[in-house]
Amino acid sequence: MFLTNRLKRVRDEILPGLNVEALVVLNTANLYYLSHFTPIEDYVTALVIHESKGAKLIVPRLELERAEEETKGLIDVIAYSKYTINDMSNVIKGDLLEAIVKVLHDMKVKSIGVEFNVPYSIIDGIRRKLNVRINDSSKKIMDLRIVKCEDEIIRIEKAIRITEKALKAALEVIRDGIRECEVAGIAEKTMRYYGAEYFAFPSIVASGFRGALPHATTSEKVIKRGELVVIDIGARYLGYCSDLTRTIPVKPVSNEAKDVYYAVLEAQKAAIRKIKPREKASEVDKAARDVLKEYGYDKYFIHSTGHGLGIEVHEPPRISSCSETILKPGMVFTVEPGVYIQGKLGVRIEDIALVTSTGCRILSTFTRDLI
Amino acid sequence: MFLTNRLKRVRDEILPGLNVEALVVLNTANLYYLSHFTPIEDYVTALVIHESKGAKLIVPRLELERAEEETKGLIDVIAYSKYTINDMSNVIKGDLLEAIVKVLHDMKVKSIGVEFNVPYSIIDGIRRKLNVRINDSSKKIMDLRIVKCEDEIIRIEKAIRITEKALKAALEVIRDGIRECEVAGIAEKTMRYYGAEYFAFPSIVASGFRGALPHATTSEKVIKRGELVVIDIGARYLGYCSDLTRTIPVKPVSNEAKDVYYAVLEAQKAAIRKIKPREKASEVDKAARDVLKEYGYDKYFIHSTGHGLGIEVHEPPRISSCSETILKPGMVFTVEPGVYIQGKLGVRIEDIALVTSTGCRILSTFTRDLI
Repeated sequence: MFLTNRLKRVRDEILPGLNVEALVVLNTANLYYLSHFTPIEDYVTALVIHESKGAKLIVPRLELERAEEETKGLIDVIAYSKYTINDMSNVIKGDLLEAIVKVLHDMKVKSIGVEFNVPYSIIDGIRRKLNVRINDSSKKIMDLRIVKCEDEIIRIEKAIRITEKALKAALEVIRDGIRECEVAGIAEKTMRYYGAEYFAFPSIVASGFRGALPHATTSEKVIKRGELVVIDIGARYLGYCSDLTRTIPVKPVSNEAKDVYYAVLEAQKAAIRKIKPREKASEVDKAARDVLKEYGYDKYFIHSTGHGLGIEVHEPPRISSCSETILKPGMVFTVEPGVYIQGKLGVRIEDIALVTSTGCRILSTFTRDLI
Repeated sequence: MFLTNRLKRVRDEILPGLNVEALVVLNTANLYYLSHFTPIEDYVTALVIHESKGAKLIVPRLELERAEEETKGLIDVIAYSKYTINDMSNVIKGDLLEAIVKVLHDMKVKSIGVEFNVPYSIIDGIRRKLNVRINDSSKKIMDLRIVKCEDEIIRIEKAIRITEKALKAALEVIRDGIRECEVAGIAEKTMRYYGAEYFAFPSIVASGFRGALPHATTSEKVIKRGELVVIDIGARYLGYCSDLTRTIPVKPVSNEAKDVYYAVLEAQKAAIRKIKPREKASEVDKAARDVLKEYGYDKYFIHSTGHGLGIEVHEPPRISSCSETILKPGMVFTVEPGVYIQGKLGVRIEDIALVTSTGCRILSTFTRDLI
């Protein structure tokens, strides 16, 4: 149902918008969005959607059966193989590029849209073998993906529930003497237990001075009394991501640590209050930044306030000072202000917001109290 | 030391080989290999190596300090930022593309090598802004990476040791009634405990009929008595990957399952016996395939025998029937024949081989007996 609707929107909106006859989809997340098929690796699969001649998913021979099953008969599937396979009419001899070229040639296509963030060699290869005009489709496809449907929101919420179980498990074991990597292992094991198909990104467990490195992941550092521990984790469930951060104190912590914590929390709340349809994403960022400015911490807030998430853990919209996005119902993004005082401590609190018709709903429910 | 040597080889071998004045490195694994810097995400960082004017690493402003630390003063680091930063001479105003163009322009470069597997938009962007000739550098860089130095082998071995601890832990819990995802969680937690910085790929735990899907990852399926469980996992340690598979029986298993197991094991041993310098990679593949043919299982062996691994979990050489690689000392790759009988069972046994000056050394030590 979603799939039929999405393919219809490609034909009705994207193809005319790009002024092309067909779309060649190569990006892994876009392929999943438009075919329900998960390629096993990047750039071995393509989906061709023609304005009137249907859609064809082109997969490696090894993937033919799985692709037919996952696309549920809604899309024609054909395979490619370097070897001649005698008894199969739906296998093209050659590599992916040769298969794409054959499909486009058979459809007599003169203009296509392709994502310009895919490898140079593929687009250059198409251009060398076919006389077609090629326009960049990345933004148009993302404009569809940026507004989530109900089914997508349910999957994201399920990924969030799993992640919250893991936050709880991590919280229970964080103590003086445990290493960051052990905490990450326990959180990840919990996500697996509750059915995560994998993780949305490598877990971050960063304690004490390491918490001040916004890009620190997880080390073998021993967590100590008096430190704040930034834990930033996310499950992946049925293709969709979660991404939550909490900052956990190993008590007793300093008054400065508490001050920073409550300033960040207040900044997050101010940002969340701004979220509603037709609001600028940059205003949400500004709301968080303004609060931190009041407390003199704005110079330590060195990243943007949030990012969209869905099939990818980082996707539009950006919630930043230079974002040009206007919020719409169905957008889902993180709200995650942070303060990073080099050599000393870091605090980040991250929840996930859904823009509703009247304001916003925070999909995550884990406590934000300083525990 | 490695780094200085690698940069020298770029200047002495790659630049003349490509007939260009400078290399622009954008691929994440290549960046790590040639700068020791781990970019936080793909395609936000570039390394420019000029034949006579030194090397420059171009990073987002947020990453400047970390990049300076990780490159240990061996490479000049400069940053880019959309915002004007008054007090910093080493920050270029603009995005990555603008920064690359500025660096190349300042160096007065007329010809460059770039990996043609990086996004079209980057290479197209350079071409639009600078009058330079651009050649594909992917293969030449991979020709360096394909032969591992001693330090790299030590890291891979450490990643293997961590993975073997996890295999042992998984083996101890696999029993009738446990779900695949729980086993994956326990294996992953064990890798974390022993210091894995993350995982080389999403763990595969595929039991019974799911073992016959070579691309199955991990589900919530309950493991049952009489099933074979394919477990394929890998730790990442100091930037390097491991990748090991064992097939574990939940006894009692059928005679057919045992027959398949011992045929696959014999195929793996035959492949390993073939490994030596100057041998063709395709002959290693053939050795495994020939054994499975004797047993009538060759039609169920539907992938290649192995793949190189290092910074990436899949990198050259391919050990397949169409591989043109001639083995050299220092190459590291998996040997992983498998038999997949649809709807019934799968068996795969995967170890990691290092080509030595006289033959090969198997870096993994975990028992291959049917336990």
